[in-house]
Amino acid sequence: MAKSRFEYVRTYEQDAILLPNTYIVIRLDGRGFHRFSAHYNFRKPNDKRALCLMNAAAKQVMRQIPDVEGAYGQSDEYSFVLSRECRMFDRREAKLVSTFASTFTAQYQFLWPEFFTDISLDGNMLPSFDGRAVLYPSLREVRDYFSWRQADCHINNLYNTSFWTLVLTGGLSEHDAEQALMGTNSGAKNELLFSQFGINYNDEEIMYRKGTMLIRDVGAGGAASESTESRDVQEWHEKSKRQVEREEKKRRKAEIVELHVDIIGDEFWRGAGRWIS
Amino acid sequence: MAKSRFEYVRTYEQDAILLPNTYIVIRLDGRGFHRFSAHYNFRKPNDKRALCLMNAAAKQVMRQIPDVEGAYGQSDEYSFVLSRECRMFDRREAKLVSTFASTFTAQYQFLWPEFFTDISLDGNMLPSFDGRAVLYPSLREVRDYFSWRQADCHINNLYNTSFWTLVLTGGLSEHDAEQALMGTNSGAKNELLFSQFGINYNDEEIMYRKGTMLIRDVGAGGAASESTESRDVQEWHEKSKRQVEREEKKRRKAEIVELHVDIIGDEFWRGAGRWIS
Amino acid sequence: MAKSRFEYVRTYEQDAILLPNTYIVIRLDGRGFHRFSAHYNFRKPNDKRALCLMNAAAKQVMRQIPDVEGAYGQSDEYSFVLSRECRMFDRREAKLVSTFASTFTAQYQFLWPEFFTDISLDGNMLPSFDGRAVLYPSLREVRDYFSWRQADCHINNLYNTSFWTLVLTGGLSEHDAEQALMGTNSGAKNELLFSQFGINYNDEEIMYRKGTMLIRDVGAGGAASESTESRDVQEWHEKSKRQVEREEKKRRKAEIVELHVDIIGDEFWRGAGRWIS
Amino acid sequence: MAKSRFEYVRTYEQDAILLPNTYIVIRLDGRGFHRFSAHYNFRKPNDKRALCLMNAAAKQVMRQIPDVEGAYGQSDEYSFVLSRECRMFDRREAKLVSTFASTFTAQYQFLWPEFFTDISLDGNMLPSFDGRAVLYPSLREVRDYFSWRQADCHINNLYNTSFWTLVLTGGLSEHDAEQALMGTNSGAKNELLFSQFGINYNDEEIMYRKGTMLIRDVGAGGAASESTESRDVQEWHEKSKRQVEREEKKRRKAEIVELHVDIIGDEFWRGAGRWIS
Repeated sequence: MAKSRFEYVRTYEQDAILLPNTYIVIRLDGRGFHRFSAHYNFRKPNDKRALCLMNAAAKQVMRQIPDVEGAYGQSDEYSFVLSRECRMFDRREAKLVSTFASTFTAQYQFLWPEFFTDISLDGNMLPSFDGRAVLYPSLREVRDYFSWRQADCHINNLYNTSFWTLVLTGGLSEHDAEQALMGTNSGAKNELLFSQFGINYNDEEIMYRKGTMLIRDVGAGGAASESTESRDVQEWHEKSKRQVEREEKKRRKAEIVELHVDIIGDEFWRGAGRWIS
Repeated sequence: MAKSRFEYVRTYEQDAILLPNTYIVIRLDGRGFHRFSAHYNFRKPNDKRALCLMNAAAKQVMRQIPDVEGAYGQSDEYSFVLSRECRMFDRREAKLVSTFASTFTAQYQFLWPEFFTDISLDGNMLPSFDGRAVLYPSLREVRDYFSWRQADCHINNLYNTSFWTLVLTGGLSEHDAEQALMGTNSGAKNELLFSQFGINYNDEEIMYRKGTMLIRDVGAGGAASESTESRDVQEWHEKSKRQVEREEKKRRKAEIVELHVDIIGDEFWRGAGRWIS
Repeated sequence: MAKSRFEYVRTYEQDAILLPNTYIVIRLDGRGFHRFSAHYNFRKPNDKRALCLMNAAAKQVMRQIPDVEGAYGQSDEYSFVLSRECRMFDRREAKLVSTFASTFTAQYQFLWPEFFTDISLDGNMLPSFDGRAVLYPSLREVRDYFSWRQADCHINNLYNTSFWTLVLTGGLSEHDAEQALMGTNSGAKNELLFSQFGINYNDEEIMYRKGTMLIRDVGAGGAASESTESRDVQEWHEKSKRQVEREEKKRRKAEIVELHVDIIGDEFWRGAGRWIS
Repeated sequence: MAKSRFEYVRTYEQDAILLPNTYIVIRLDGRGFHRFSAHYNFRKPNDKRALCLMNAAAKQVMRQIPDVEGAYGQSDEYSFVLSRECRMFDRREAKLVSTFASTFTAQYQFLWPEFFTDISLDGNMLPSFDGRAVLYPSLREVRDYFSWRQADCHINNLYNTSFWTLVLTGGLSEHDAEQALMGTNSGAKNELLFSQFGINYNDEEIMYRKGTMLIRDVGAGGAASESTESRDVQEWHEKSKRQVEREEKKRRKAEIVELHVDIIGDEFWRGAGRWIS
C-alpha cells in the first residue's frame, strides 16, 4: 500500500538496465582536471604522484567491487571492465556509474596525502570524476577498447613530452611550441626529441608511455577466456546465489597486479589477458 | 580522421539524453549506510553531526553547480532539483548522475572532520553514494516529489524515535521494541511516546521531523513560478549563451537558505517555494 | 514457474516506457514513397486522391484509437498526438509506434480502391510506413510541433508548385527548373508563378497549402486546455478504470472534423484547438 | 539553417540505437487476434489457411528486407532475426520495429484473398500487428530464443488440440473441457487424446506441432556460424558500402526455405541452422 498520496511520483522513475551477457566498461574522467592540475602544480608533462594516486584509487575500487575484472588508466581517466555475468545492482546503469564515480572519488581524496605529502586539498577545488557505461558484446571489442585507450595514451604522451621539452628545456613559448609541433607525425616528434634534445622517447618511463593495466590474478585456469558460443548461457542464468558468492569471494581474495606493458599486441591477451572471462 | 583502427569502439557509446523542458531530480543515497553508521557509532535515532554534514555537503554542491534550484535531504539521502532549462552536459544522464555522486562524496569526506571532530575516516569504510535521475514535466510533480520524501521522513522518524526510546530509555531488546511497534499507526506511536515516556513528539528537533530544504534565495521576482503554458519555450531554446551565463552568475551569487519547515502544505510553495522556475 | 529452460531469454527484453504526463506525438512517414508515387503515377505536384486517402486512413486510426486527440497530415506523413494522460500499452514505446504503423498501413491499403478506383495495388509495391514517438512536456511545444510541420508543408508545396509549373506548363527540363528555383525565396517564387504563369499561389487548393488537421469534436468545454500547473496530477494518477473508460467512450463517439486552416496563428488554438487536453 | 522558428521541437526527438554486433530479434504479435479469429470464423484448434497466410506474409518480408536471416512463426506471432551486422536504419529501434509491423501487415492483408478465398476483409476488423525488438549478444541466446518459442508452440498446441477435441468431438462445454484439462501435464493430455479419442498427438500435422521456420538458403559455406571471438569485428566496422551491398544482393537472391522441424535439438543448428552468421 502507498504510504502517502504522493507515491505516484515513483512511476516516473525509469531504470535503464544494461543488456545481459555483455561486458560493461565504466570509464571515469577527471572533471576540469586542467584547472585542477594547474591549481595543485602538477608536474609537466607527467606528474608521477598524480598517476600513482590514480592507480592506487583504482586498485581500491577493484578491491571493493569484485565484479571488476580489470582496469586501465592513463592521464586523468580510468576504465573498469565488469564481467559479462555481472549482476551488481541488477545491472542498473545509473547506480553502477554513480557508484564507481563516488567510490573512486572517495579513494582518490583519501589517498591524496600519501602521494602529495606536502600539499593539502582545498575545499573549493576538490577532485571529482564523471562516468559513463559502454557495453561490448564480445571479448574482441573489449580488447579493442583497451587498445584504443592505449593508442590514445601513446599519441597524447608523445605530443606532451615533445611540447613540454620544447618549452621547459628548449625555452620556447607555449605558443611557439604548439606551432613547432603542428602537423608533425610520430616519427618527426621522435626525431625532434632525439636530435635536438638527445632524448630517446622509448627510454621515457614506461608508465607514461603505456599507461597502467590492473588485473586480478585469479590463478591458472581461473578465468580462462572462452568463446561466447561454447559458454553455456543457460547455465549462467541459473547459477545459484551461493555459486555467485563463491566466485565473488575468490575474486575478492585474488591479488591485483599492476602492469605497464603493451596491451595492443596478442601477447598480453594470450597470457595475462586471460584474466577476463 | 580516426587516430587508430580501434576507434570503432566509440560507436557503441550511447548517451541517454534527458528530455528537454522537464525538471530533473537527482537523488543520492548513501551506499551501505547501515554498516557505515554502525562503524562510526552514529547516535540513535538521529545523529545531528551526520545530518548537518549531509546538509553542508549539499550546500557545497549547490554552490558549485548553479543549475540546482533547490534540494531536500533526510537521513542518508539528498535530492537535488535542476531547472527545467538546465543544459549542463547537454542533459546527458550518466554524466549528470555521476558528477553529483562524485561531487557530493568529495564534499562529504572533506567536511567530515568539521562535524566528526574526534573520529577519523577509515580507508576501508569511506562514504559513498549512488544516484539516479528522475524527470518531472510539471512543477506540481516536483512539489509532490518533495512531499513524498518529507512524508517518508516523518514516517521513518516517528518509528525510529519510538523504537530507540523503547530500547534506550525503556530498556527493551531491539526485538521486543520491534514487536511492540508492529502494526501501530502514527497516533498510537505518539501516544506511546507521551504516555510511557512523557515525550511530546512535536517537541522533537524539527530538523529530525521535517528534514532539510535548501533553496537559493534569488530575491523578489527572481524565479517566480509561472505555468508551463505561459512561458515561451521557443524563447528559451533561443536563449543566447550570454544570457544563460548571466542567469548562472546570478544563481551562483544567491545565498543558499536552509529551512526546516513543512513543505507539503501550500504555504511553503506560495512563499519560499517560489525559488523554482 | 518457467514453462521451459529457455525462458531466461525474456530477461533480455527491455521496454522503453514513455514518461508519464507528457504529450506523445507519433509521426508516420511513407517508406520509399518517391518510388511508390512514381510506380502508381501520382499526379504532380499534388495528387488529390493520395492526400485524401492519407486523410481517410488517419481518420480510421483516430476512430479505432481513442487516445488520439488530433492529427496533422501533409504529403506522405501523418502525426498523431496522444493525450498526456494516455495509458495505452502502459505507454510502451515499441508497442505504440508499431501499432500506429500497422493500423495506418492496413487502413491505407484497405481504402486504396476508394480513391484509386482504376489502379490496383501490386504485391511487390505495397505501401508501408515507419514511425517514431516524440515526447513534449507542454502544450506550447505540441502547438509548435504542428506549426513546424505546417511551415514545412508550406515551404515544400510552394517549391513543388513552382517546380512542376515550370516543367509541366513552362516546358523546362527538371534540371533547368531546379536551376531556376535555386536560391529563390518565397516572394520570388510567388512572383514567378504570378508573372510568368498568371497563378496566384494563394488560390491554389487550401489542402495543398495548409495540409490537413483532424480534431475530435468533443463539444463545448469538453477538453478545454488548462495549464499543467492547475491540473491535479495526483487525481489523474488515481483516476479509476471506470472513469478512464467513460472518457474513452466519449472520445470514441465524438465526430472527427477535417480542417484545412492556418494552425500557426493563435486563432486555431483559441477555438478549435481547444480539442487538446 | 532552421527553416522556421519552430524547428527547436526536433531537439526533443531521441533515437534509441540498438547496440552494434548483437543479434536483433523482432517479434510481431497479432493485435486482438482472439476477436479477429472469431470474426472470420477461424477453424479450431488450428486454421491452416491462417497459418499459411502468416508464413506467406513472413516470406515476403524476408524477400523485401535482406537483413533478415531467419524467422519463426506460430499462431499469430512471427519472430525475425536480423544479422548481427545489420545496419538498416542505422539500427534505430523505432524505425525497425514499425517498418516490420507495417510491411508484415501490408503483406498479410494483400495475401488474404489467396488463403481466405471466400471471406472478404471488413474495414472495421482489419489485421494489425504490434512489434518489439530484443537484442541477443550471442548465437546461443538466439538459438534459445527460437527454442523458447517452439516450446511455447508445443505447450499451447497440445492444450488447444486436447481442449477442442473434448469440445468438438467429445461434446463437452468449453467450461467443462477447461476443468478436465486443469493441472494435467503433457503425458496426461497425450493419454487422454489417445485413450478417449484414438488420436496419436504425434500424427497431428507437423506445422501445428512445430511451427514454421524460414531460412535463407545462402548455400554451402555461405554464412557458416563462427564464434564471436574469431570474427574480426574491426573488419566488419570497416566493411565498405560496396561489400555490404554485395552481401545484401546475395541474400536477396537466396531461396527462402520453409521448414517444420524440431529446432530445439542440435541437429537443426548443425545443418540448416548454419544459415545464421
